[in-house]
Formats: sequence, C-alpha cells, structure tokens
Amino acid sequence: MSLREELKQTSILFISKNKNKFIEASHILSSFNIKLEWAPFSKLEIQSSSLSDIALFAARNAFESIKKPLIVEDDGLFIKALNGFPGPFSSYIYSTIGLNGILRLMEGVDDRECFFESAVAFCNQNISKVFVGRVYGEISRVIRGSCGFGFDPIFIPKGENLTFAEMPLNYKCSISHRAVALKDFARWFLKNFKYYL
Amino acid sequence: MSLREELKQTSILFISKNKNKFIEASHILSSFNIKLEWAPFSKLEIQSSSLSDIALFAARNAFESIKKPLIVEDDGLFIKALNGFPGPFSSYIYSTIGLNGILRLMEGVDDRECFFESAVAFCNQNISKVFVGRVYGEISRVIRGSCGFGFDPIFIPKGENLTFAEMPLNYKCSISHRAVALKDFARWFLKNFKYYL
Repeated sequence: MSLREELKQTSILFISKNKNKFIEASHILSSFNIKLEWAPFSKLEIQSSSLSDIALFAARNAFESIKKPLIVEDDGLFIKALNGFPGPFSSYIYSTIGLNGILRLMEGVDDRECFFESAVAFCNQNISKVFVGRVYGEISRVIRGSCGFGFDPIFIPKGENLTFAEMPLNYKCSISHRAVALKDFARWFLKNFKYYL
Repeated sequence: MSLREELKQTSILFISKNKNKFIEASHILSSFNIKLEWAPFSKLEIQSSSLSDIALFAARNAFESIKKPLIVEDDGLFIKALNGFPGPFSSYIYSTIGLNGILRLMEGVDDRECFFESAVAFCNQNISKVFVGRVYGEISRVIRGSCGFGFDPIFIPKGENLTFAEMPLNYKCSISHRAVALKDFARWFLKNFKYYL
C-alpha cells in the first residue's frame, strides 16, 4: 500500500471544542493528504505564558485518556503595546471584553504591532512534539469583516490590507499562524509517518 | 498535649510565589493559632472560570510531589460590566494591562459593581477540600493607595470609603475575601484537626 493510500485510511484526532479551528486545520492538512477527525472534547489547559507548554500539556493529558494519535492546537494574539495581552488567555478575554475591549485599550496607541501565534502539539504512544507558527501584523483601528473567528476582525497581517476576517478561508489558511504551524507538523509527520501512527 | 500546644509545633505549607499573599494568610490564621510555612514554589494552574477548580487542582498536584499538608490560595477580581473580566486570570492581566488598563475599560461605565473571590484549597493524604470567600464592592474611578498588592488600589469594598490599598493590613485582613475563605478553612480545620494533620 502506498503512503497516500495508507494516509487515506487513517486519521488523527483533533481535540477542540472550536469547530472553526477544526475546519481550518482540516483544510490546511488536506493538501498533505492528512485526514483529521474532530473530537469536540474539552481539553485540560494549564495557565502559562507559553502556548507550546499549554498545547503539549493538553495533548499529553488527552492522550492518557484517549490512547489514539491526536493533535491539540492553541493560539493567541500578542500585542506589543499591551505587554503581550491578551496572549495565552485569548479565548477568555475574547468572551469577556471582546473586540471592543481590545480596541478601547488601543485607543490613541500608535504602535499597533502584534502577532498571532499557534502551537500545534501532536501526541501518540511514542512521542509528543510541538510545532509553532507566527504571523506578524497590526491591530486595526476598527472591527472589519465577518469571516473566521476570535480576534480575526482586528488583525491585519503584515503586507496585507485586509483583516483575517475579511479574507476568504482559502486565503487566510495559506498565510495564517495556524497554517505555518500545521504545515511544519505535516512535513515532519509525513517524513516520519511509519513511526508515528 | 493540648490542641494549642500541638498546633504550635506543626505547620501547614502555603504554596505561592506571592509573598504578600503568604503574609496576609499568616496574619489571618495566626488568630486561630494555625501556623503557615511559606513554600515559594510555582504551582500548576489550570485554565478554568472556577477559582475553586484551579485551587483544588493545584493543591492536589503540589501534594503529589511534596507529600505534606498544604494550602493553595487563588483569587480573582470579577467585574460585572466586563462579564467577569479579569476573573481567574487576574495575575496575568495585572502584569500586562495593569490597573490603568482596567480603569480604561471602565471609562464611562456607571455600573462599577464587582467582587473579589478567594479559593483556599487544603490537601493532605486523606482529603482535598476548598473554601471560598467573596467580598463585593466597586471599581474606583482612580488608582488610590499603595498597600496590599494586585488590584487592591482600584477595589472599594461595599460600605467602605477606602480602597483595599488604602487600608492598614490589619483592617484589610479582617474583611477581605481571603479572610472569609481562610477563616472558614480555619474553623473546619480546628474542628477536624486530629484527622487532618
């Protein structure tokens, strides 16, 4: 059986309650013929300033229960003028003060530099490994766009005019932090596939 | 040996990197003749909207390594108009956007209602148990006072004119959320002392 055929028959669990994340991750990995299966479970997240630590801990913890090859992805928006806020707690902060809260904190702030970071942790019986992707950009002055999720409507990637939420899924998934991390994972995974599934 | 004498000879570990917390907790428990010993270790904190869950998990995790009776205390400031923000992530949010960030988010907001919550988790070989204390109040319009720590300079307890940071330690420790939780713990502990140390 060829590698392509073998890949078709197996899948990696993607542990997340966020369906949008799963859709993006599936889209990104489909071009590598890596199939994801959505496992909409809560994961155990620790408090840390490192997304890699959070994702690795969650992946190992999930593997202990599920015992199947799996991926956990964690991401955050880090704003330079706010000392990295909202950072690793982006989900909670999004659900409390939201986009308007961030824009309010950035009122009158000229330095709008920030980055989105994604940490993709893979875990199976033999290994746990994390892949990190970053995309730099700036915080918009107003909320723009309705695609994507989370802080997408206020993030303009470097070199672009649109926010993530104004881009079609295809285009966002070709340049996003999530894409950088997942493509890195995919290249490693395909190289080592025999050992890791 | 009397209970008082026994208590004098033993101590409970207080796991926290925050020396101010230890000082306040020692002060509060000293009136019950319960002696704390400061263990300035990092604790493993999970991400949760429940301080009780965070404190219990951290206490159990610490006990697994240390194997001595111990306390973990976690606290947070929950602002109604901000949907509970900064909540369980108060430390991170304090260290990034700080007091000024909170005041900025509250500019022009008339409803300044909030509460401080403390969760005190005790853990030993036989049991893990959590005690919760709350104190309601409001967010001040400006930063006031230099005592205490964290969000103390913007929190005015109900029925008071001063912020926590304008109060002498003695007085803050007689009314604070931490005091409510620790006194609750102390009463339980003294009642059950024979079984739990």
